[in-house]
Amino acid sequence: MKPKLTIVKIGGNVIDDPEMLQTVLKEFGQLDGAKLLVHGGGKIASDISKRLKIPTQMVDGRRVTDATTLEVVTMVYGGLVNKNIIALLQSLGTDAIGLTGADANTITAHKRAVKEVDYGFVGDIDVANINTKKLSFLINGGLVPVFCALTHDKQGQLLNTNADTMASSLAIALSGEYDTELIYCFEKNGVLLDVEDDNSLIRELTYLHFQQLKDDGVIHQGMIPKLDNAFLAKRHNVGVTVKHALNLTSPIGTSLL
Amino acid sequence: MKPKLTIVKIGGNVIDDPEMLQTVLKEFGQLDGAKLLVHGGGKIASDISKRLKIPTQMVDGRRVTDATTLEVVTMVYGGLVNKNIIALLQSLGTDAIGLTGADANTITAHKRAVKEVDYGFVGDIDVANINTKKLSFLINGGLVPVFCALTHDKQGQLLNTNADTMASSLAIALSGEYDTELIYCFEKNGVLLDVEDDNSLIRELTYLHFQQLKDDGVIHQGMIPKLDNAFLAKRHNVGVTVKHALNLTSPIGTSLL
Repeated sequence: MKPKLTIVKIGGNVIDDPEMLQTVLKEFGQLDGAKLLVHGGGKIASDISKRLKIPTQMVDGRRVTDATTLEVVTMVYGGLVNKNIIALLQSLGTDAIGLTGADANTITAHKRAVKEVDYGFVGDIDVANINTKKLSFLINGGLVPVFCALTHDKQGQLLNTNADTMASSLAIALSGEYDTELIYCFEKNGVLLDVEDDNSLIRELTYLHFQQLKDDGVIHQGMIPKLDNAFLAKRHNVGVTVKHALNLTSPIGTSLL
Repeated sequence: MKPKLTIVKIGGNVIDDPEMLQTVLKEFGQLDGAKLLVHGGGKIASDISKRLKIPTQMVDGRRVTDATTLEVVTMVYGGLVNKNIIALLQSLGTDAIGLTGADANTITAHKRAVKEVDYGFVGDIDVANINTKKLSFLINGGLVPVFCALTHDKQGQLLNTNADTMASSLAIALSGEYDTELIYCFEKNGVLLDVEDDNSLIRELTYLHFQQLKDDGVIHQGMIPKLDNAFLAKRHNVGVTVKHALNLTSPIGTSLL
């Protein structure tokens, strides 16, 4: 039997709420077995960009990463956010170690090809190249990897990477060695029929149902890439749930079937 | 016989010079045996502080670290500088992993007591508590730890820490397990009799000679704490040299006797 590994991804709105962050990190630390955290960046990167007078450009909810913006996200995701999460987890007794994909060459990516939009220094993960050997070395050594959403191309270039995709890519790559569970935590109860109504929670979601909800325009725009990532992991035998950050250890949430 | 470990510290002026940085990292990667890097921050932290309109306050060459300044150094040292060094080392084939003292709980420190000056969130390292077990786990696993000068108090607080002191503390703590050599790299040829004349290099420096040069006011102010740290490591049987970053693998430099 493979050992258990729980991968938790916390979104930007969780990072921006110190109380919610503290709660989810506490519950995360208490999860049984091996674990790994992936975190988004939150509004801090946009805020710092603004104060540094660097314009923030978004296309379809994704940040366009020019050289200066890459510096900001490297500072904010890799430094400010990641290191404060590490210090907080350590204070809670969790032996966390902060990583980008460049650290220990864990995750390589390639710069996204320019089609209609030039996203700049944005990296698409090479899932087959994820360094599962080094990751399991760290995990089996009792460490809890905490990834910010940065990767590298192994040629010296850091790349901004979508945190949801990083979480599902890690879950897929590590599912060979671990019985892997992936939990997306954010500021909603899960996948909702009405984004304004936390009681409209879908408790179990099949891929067919997801496609239908997408066709009907029911699922919120920002939710679609997250669920695409989630179902991709599901197809690789990863157990996937989407839930509120305050419900990490509660059964309330959306389970993918 | 203990395995060899070389600890290299590169200063801020090396960080600020991309060509020198590239050269020293390349030579660092080619050093035989286990190795570990400690880096300073350079002028980028002051530059970012200025752009964020945060005043930089220095006392005796040390940065006063209020809460906002701590955010800046966490961003710059832990994020921008550390992660770019990691990506660069990885591109050169060195399996580097970026760390603060909070990561894997490697280095704890206590907030410096307020005497004449309140340095703010500045940490003095608890050398006896340095987590040599976790560090040797990483090193013996083939990884090259790269420390920025941040530690934590294990209560959730990150602390700004002098990089020279961090390097000598690590050298002392790891000297039990490794035959440890400490190399301070900066933008001068070593300890100079005349700070303006790179040919006035002192090739071998005893503690007595250092005290005498200090009394005579010959040694440059900024050099004194570095050499205090260096001689402290020397007393713990660490081999110590001070040299130009471009001379990492050359015999030119000051050896402590």
